[in-house]
Amino acid sequence: MEMMNYNAGTGTCKNWIVEERAFDTRYLGKCEAIFCQGNGYIGQRAALEERYVGETRDLLVTGTFNKFDENEVTELPNLPDLTNLSLTVNGLRFSMDTGKLHGYSRRLNLKNGELTREVDWESPAGDRLKLVFRRFVSLADEHLLGIRADITPMNRNVTVKVESGIDGRMTNTGSQHFHEGAKRLYDNRILQMCSQTTQSGVWCCLHTVNSFLIDGSAVDLPLLPIIDRRYLSNRAEAAVEPGHTLTVEKISCVHTSRDMAYDGCADDAAARIRQDGMAAIRAAYPRGYEALAAESFGAWEKLWKEIDIQIGTEKGYDQLAIRFALYHLNIMVKKDDSRVGIGAKALSGEGYKGHSFWDTEIFILPYFTLTQPETARTLLEYRYKNLYGARLKARENGYEGAMYPWESAWIDDGEVTPLWGAADVVTGLPMKILTGMIEQHISSDIAFAVWQYYTATGDQDFLDRCGYEIVIDTARFWASRVEWNEDKQAYVIHDVIGPDEYKEHVNNNAYTNYMAQYNMGLALHMMDTLEQSKNEVWQRLQEKLDFAGSRAKIQKAAQKIFLPQPNEDGIVAQFEGYFDLAHIDLTKYKESSVVGTIYNDYNIEQISGFQVAKQSDLVMLLFLRDDLFERGIKRKNYEYYEARTLHDSSLSKSTH
Amino acid sequence: MEMMNYNAGTGTCKNWIVEERAFDTRYLGKCEAIFCQGNGYIGQRAALEERYVGETRDLLVTGTFNKFDENEVTELPNLPDLTNLSLTVNGLRFSMDTGKLHGYSRRLNLKNGELTREVDWESPAGDRLKLVFRRFVSLADEHLLGIRADITPMNRNVTVKVESGIDGRMTNTGSQHFHEGAKRLYDNRILQMCSQTTQSGVWCCLHTVNSFLIDGSAVDLPLLPIIDRRYLSNRAEAAVEPGHTLTVEKISCVHTSRDMAYDGCADDAAARIRQDGMAAIRAAYPRGYEALAAESFGAWEKLWKEIDIQIGTEKGYDQLAIRFALYHLNIMVKKDDSRVGIGAKALSGEGYKGHSFWDTEIFILPYFTLTQPETARTLLEYRYKNLYGARLKARENGYEGAMYPWESAWIDDGEVTPLWGAADVVTGLPMKILTGMIEQHISSDIAFAVWQYYTATGDQDFLDRCGYEIVIDTARFWASRVEWNEDKQAYVIHDVIGPDEYKEHVNNNAYTNYMAQYNMGLALHMMDTLEQSKNEVWQRLQEKLDFAGSRAKIQKAAQKIFLPQPNEDGIVAQFEGYFDLAHIDLTKYKESSVVGTIYNDYNIEQISGFQVAKQSDLVMLLFLRDDLFERGIKRKNYEYYEARTLHDSSLSKSTH
Repeated sequence: MEMMNYNAGTGTCKNWIVEERAFDTRYLGKCEAIFCQGNGYIGQRAALEERYVGETRDLLVTGTFNKFDENEVTELPNLPDLTNLSLTVNGLRFSMDTGKLHGYSRRLNLKNGELTREVDWESPAGDRLKLVFRRFVSLADEHLLGIRADITPMNRNVTVKVESGIDGRMTNTGSQHFHEGAKRLYDNRILQMCSQTTQSGVWCCLHTVNSFLIDGSAVDLPLLPIIDRRYLSNRAEAAVEPGHTLTVEKISCVHTSRDMAYDGCADDAAARIRQDGMAAIRAAYPRGYEALAAESFGAWEKLWKEIDIQIGTEKGYDQLAIRFALYHLNIMVKKDDSRVGIGAKALSGEGYKGHSFWDTEIFILPYFTLTQPETARTLLEYRYKNLYGARLKARENGYEGAMYPWESAWIDDGEVTPLWGAADVVTGLPMKILTGMIEQHISSDIAFAVWQYYTATGDQDFLDRCGYEIVIDTARFWASRVEWNEDKQAYVIHDVIGPDEYKEHVNNNAYTNYMAQYNMGLALHMMDTLEQSKNEVWQRLQEKLDFAGSRAKIQKAAQKIFLPQPNEDGIVAQFEGYFDLAHIDLTKYKESSVVGTIYNDYNIEQISGFQVAKQSDLVMLLFLRDDLFERGIKRKNYEYYEARTLHDSSLSKSTH
Repeated sequence: MEMMNYNAGTGTCKNWIVEERAFDTRYLGKCEAIFCQGNGYIGQRAALEERYVGETRDLLVTGTFNKFDENEVTELPNLPDLTNLSLTVNGLRFSMDTGKLHGYSRRLNLKNGELTREVDWESPAGDRLKLVFRRFVSLADEHLLGIRADITPMNRNVTVKVESGIDGRMTNTGSQHFHEGAKRLYDNRILQMCSQTTQSGVWCCLHTVNSFLIDGSAVDLPLLPIIDRRYLSNRAEAAVEPGHTLTVEKISCVHTSRDMAYDGCADDAAARIRQDGMAAIRAAYPRGYEALAAESFGAWEKLWKEIDIQIGTEKGYDQLAIRFALYHLNIMVKKDDSRVGIGAKALSGEGYKGHSFWDTEIFILPYFTLTQPETARTLLEYRYKNLYGARLKARENGYEGAMYPWESAWIDDGEVTPLWGAADVVTGLPMKILTGMIEQHISSDIAFAVWQYYTATGDQDFLDRCGYEIVIDTARFWASRVEWNEDKQAYVIHDVIGPDEYKEHVNNNAYTNYMAQYNMGLALHMMDTLEQSKNEVWQRLQEKLDFAGSRAKIQKAAQKIFLPQPNEDGIVAQFEGYFDLAHIDLTKYKESSVVGTIYNDYNIEQISGFQVAKQSDLVMLLFLRDDLFERGIKRKNYEYYEARTLHDSSLSKSTH
């Protein structure tokens, strides 16, 4: 049986349901990410209510970056877990690893954002139960989350013990970002945990209430409070007869001092989020799971009316796939907050630390530009605010203008690419991560996105406020970055990483050079336009960016930058000397379902000597600038590079 | 079937083996502690090689205290884990939670310190394997640990994947005490992780090597290095035929900058432990598990020749029990290092943070005093060094002399009792932990232990160097602590916690008053002796402690301290007003196998109103000072208090 089922939806839910129909702990991580829920503010990874070895429980809130250590980079901290709900049935802990699993189905309903799990479980003692778990992260109220568990014994009387609370023992792969903070119970029912990040001083205040029903009617079970280190919960116990249902509802709220509502309230943000959180939970929990979920479902319904893309009923999988993409695109972005970007793994996990890469502008932004331009503008305004860090990085590297960080976090953080990565298979040493220093194409990628946004929307106001400045200052960076080469009688760009990260320290990467030229050409065009207008935008930017001083330099660089041309076979070299590299048999790695397996055999120096790409590089250029070469050349290059590309990045196959 | 079996040992191993004969995840913690291994320097909790939900993996090294946070207390940090060894059999992860467990036995051999586990497991795919895990923490070389796993497929060819390394993602209940530090591989075989505690700056350097054998012969399997955040390991893979055995040997070394060898070498300790650790692992791992384990077994054999207590062959369980106690007593103490005490949970877990309480002097020290006086002396020398913290605490509290911290860590830390504990069932707030402020009897407990040591050993040198000073300065504390009471015309001690911690803020706790009187009486006796000798010890102490100024005060306090007497029924009140408290039915709590269940029904204020004791209090006094009352009175008090004592501390039943 295939683990995933893409045909689970029927009737009005046809092509709306992603189903996992077998439980296999080998794929915990995959489903935790696929079934992630969120609303742009919160991302809640879909770890199960009960714990499993190998799980990753993540609750991430946009913009809450913290450094564990001064010599580490900032990352999105893993907040205390709110999904934990441990069940003990007649003394035995419920776990699908034990006893017998007679039935299992987990379904993400893309239409209303609800995640449900149906389990038919027989305990090692022979107690058989039907369990239904449901959860939502509210799209109607970004602070609100809910879980509901229906527990129905099928063959015998059972005593069910429930423990559910706020678990602050979470870390980011062992790094703890929070002081222990304060744990309190109010009315012996409302659990409150407020803690502060260790370095950035962000306050996070979480509230949770557990309520109980038998056959749909509220019951007032005695709640035993547990306060332990970094942990706060309630324990309750109920005797349930066969055919009757015990329901646990867990309603939670999350507030942080980085929320927009508290921007500029550093002094009393801690007190205010505690008050606001308490008010929010008091208002929410008495209404119950169904009412709160219904509000979120309503918000999803409204959203889908605006965003659904229907591509014909024949291709069910494709229809589901595009909705799956739309679902994740729309939960990964805080649409109204230009202080935060989109993490490379969105808010679905700790990977890439919540940092924004070129992924945003080249792979995600086009969707928003074309369908939700306000959101696209918010994201580009983030890059405008990010100019602070880009200018900082340029200065630190001896360049002019704006050199965007390869990885960005909070708007004033600057470059946050970590310095060290995985092991070198040959030397046994951690590999230095060079992308933060020499993967530089992101600056022109952002300029490209600005223009794409403008041409699609005609948003002159954005161009005036932000767009011109981004494009011109990145062009100034490129003009200072290129070096004159006597042999070529051209400006070259040496020692970079192109989109293909299996090649470090290359010269004249075609993607980088062509996109830099595009960036500079666009800036010159903008300067012409501005000069003709002679309005106050022109004056402001003229004063700030000193057109007179930089224009000639940009012009020279744009005109004389080295742009590699097709060789006699029509192939454009990905970078200088590419054709001299060895072509090795990639079948083994192409067939592997795991990315990066070539590193098991070779180290980065060795891989640099092969014609093998991690991901789309020259083909990426052909895609973005489809005016550069005629169709025949493009086809030849596609075929040539496809054979040499491992697609070891999710940014690759989509481009090809 | 009983989970534990105390009759597993036969022949020369009779009454030497503690066996767990069923695997039950409800008792993970219990067996992790019972089967803990160590050598006084290292304590390795017996979490299994493969991971389970609910486990606690702990590697603790004496004296490495660190604070996560300035407003937390210092604790023994959990070092990177060295016991992890994950096995995948034909693609399925080995876990006794899955598939079928046809046989299970885990045995701690007290005689040689080896822990073995035999497992007969059938994977969910039907692959049946016999697995034997063995491990030791060397008693011959305190830095050395070893694990050996023999994997024998029984019915089919299997491919076994092994992953084993150093896992620095461990925390203390969510608090991370280490900077990430440096991870390196040498010769693609030696894994090295060196990291430093965040506040105390202790360097810990761990080395591990994995080796492989097939049917006992070394095989050179390709090792894939994995370096991840706070994690470093090797992966290897082998095809094994039925009846053949794949063996994995994992040899590790632990060195820290707090080791005695580096005392006073703050500047280059980090470099030296790296060198010494590397030299140690290079010397050790080629010799293999059997040879290294044999050396440790030899050290145990030698030790048992000195320490075994044989109480007759008829009582097998008692003989095993006393050996079990001897085993743990001898692995919990660093016998040659007077800079460190014994943690209340020894080195078996994170509970009580590795802090030393009165448990050491009253419950553990007598064994060493009577059988290994050098070790007893080392432990009392720790208290002598601890006078620094005791004097600090006295000054901070407005007293004279030496007021010992209720909880002690590193010699100059002072009081390290945490401020907050578990939840109050009535108010829902964390309860304040008052023991650090008002459980004061530890000062006289230490004085008592000094005299017990001296009377048993006649070690005048220790008395001259340390003992006099401890006893006289704690007596000075008591003389300043007592208050004159006009009504009683006596000195009283108000507002304390006695040994029974269910009673806070009591007046004239009998144990506290009688032991304070003993402490002061002993000091006066010592001053008399010293004065008569008029030697240089007398002079030094006279100058330092100002006998003239404090003697009269001690004398007055000792003579006039209020000492509660038996009432008409022969019962001595545990504290003033005890007889006025309500006597409630304790049957429910006495029958519970879990301690502290009374807190589920009452909070500390309510419990203070009942005649209920957590642990031996007045009976403890009768035990330590059996000269105070005649036999009949003692029996009456024993019976009276036994009925009112829940034994919610392991210090209680042993005393009764």
